[in-house]
Amino acid sequence: MTTAPFPIAPDKHALERGDQLAPRFNADGLVVAVAQHADTGEILMLAWMNDEALKLTVETGVAHYFSRSRNELWKKGETSGQLQLVEELRVDCDQDAVLIKVRPQGDGGACHVGFRSCFYRVWEDGRLVERG
Amino acid sequence: MTTAPFPIAPDKHALERGDQLAPRFNADGLVVAVAQHADTGEILMLAWMNDEALKLTVETGVAHYFSRSRNELWKKGETSGQLQLVEELRVDCDQDAVLIKVRPQGDGGACHVGFRSCFYRVWEDGRLVERG
Repeated sequence: MTTAPFPIAPDKHALERGDQLAPRFNADGLVVAVAQHADTGEILMLAWMNDEALKLTVETGVAHYFSRSRNELWKKGETSGQLQLVEELRVDCDQDAVLIKVRPQGDGGACHVGFRSCFYRVWEDGRLVERG
Repeated sequence: MTTAPFPIAPDKHALERGDQLAPRFNADGLVVAVAQHADTGEILMLAWMNDEALKLTVETGVAHYFSRSRNELWKKGETSGQLQLVEELRVDCDQDAVLIKVRPQGDGGACHVGFRSCFYRVWEDGRLVERG
């Protein structure tokens, strides 16, 4: 397992325009990660990555997160089969957020509640409506 | 301005399957918000909302965030013209993340660096490549 840390961007220009992946982890050592379906564009879930999870995601092409509730590395789908194969990884301007375009394996789902996406509820007329 | 707080879901079922918007703000009083282009599906940016920003977003149909760097309410586009008209608002299973599908106004951009999306850099062959 690779544990070498990511570099720290020396200045704003390097952070925003540089070609080095220099994630700005928060005080808890995490960046936020958005998983988008590579084919449909649907937003599947939002989770967090520590440096190890990000490195493993980059190196293996399979999405790894950090579970804040369990306080441990989380290879998404390891038990459910809903592995996420990473088609593309992007970082935002100030490198505190990661976007991964993924192809969910197994039953194609991403959400523990049973929906394909975690964002299965829409705000309509003052209440949340499920759209499976 | 409405400042009444959002309800707190009484249990897991209400949180995950209920029809009440009961956001789980973090210790800083924030939920993470992903803005997706309503027409193209492109992920434009990731930012944060406090209760006031979320309420204003829901009530006005214009995206409001909370700027962590300026520590204040941030009506996106107020100075740049890049207002984001909200087409749809979704919440995730455990209600600590919000997805808004928006139509950016002004020049259609969302990123302060000048790109349409903040996620303008793709990880390719061990480095970040800009894709404008």
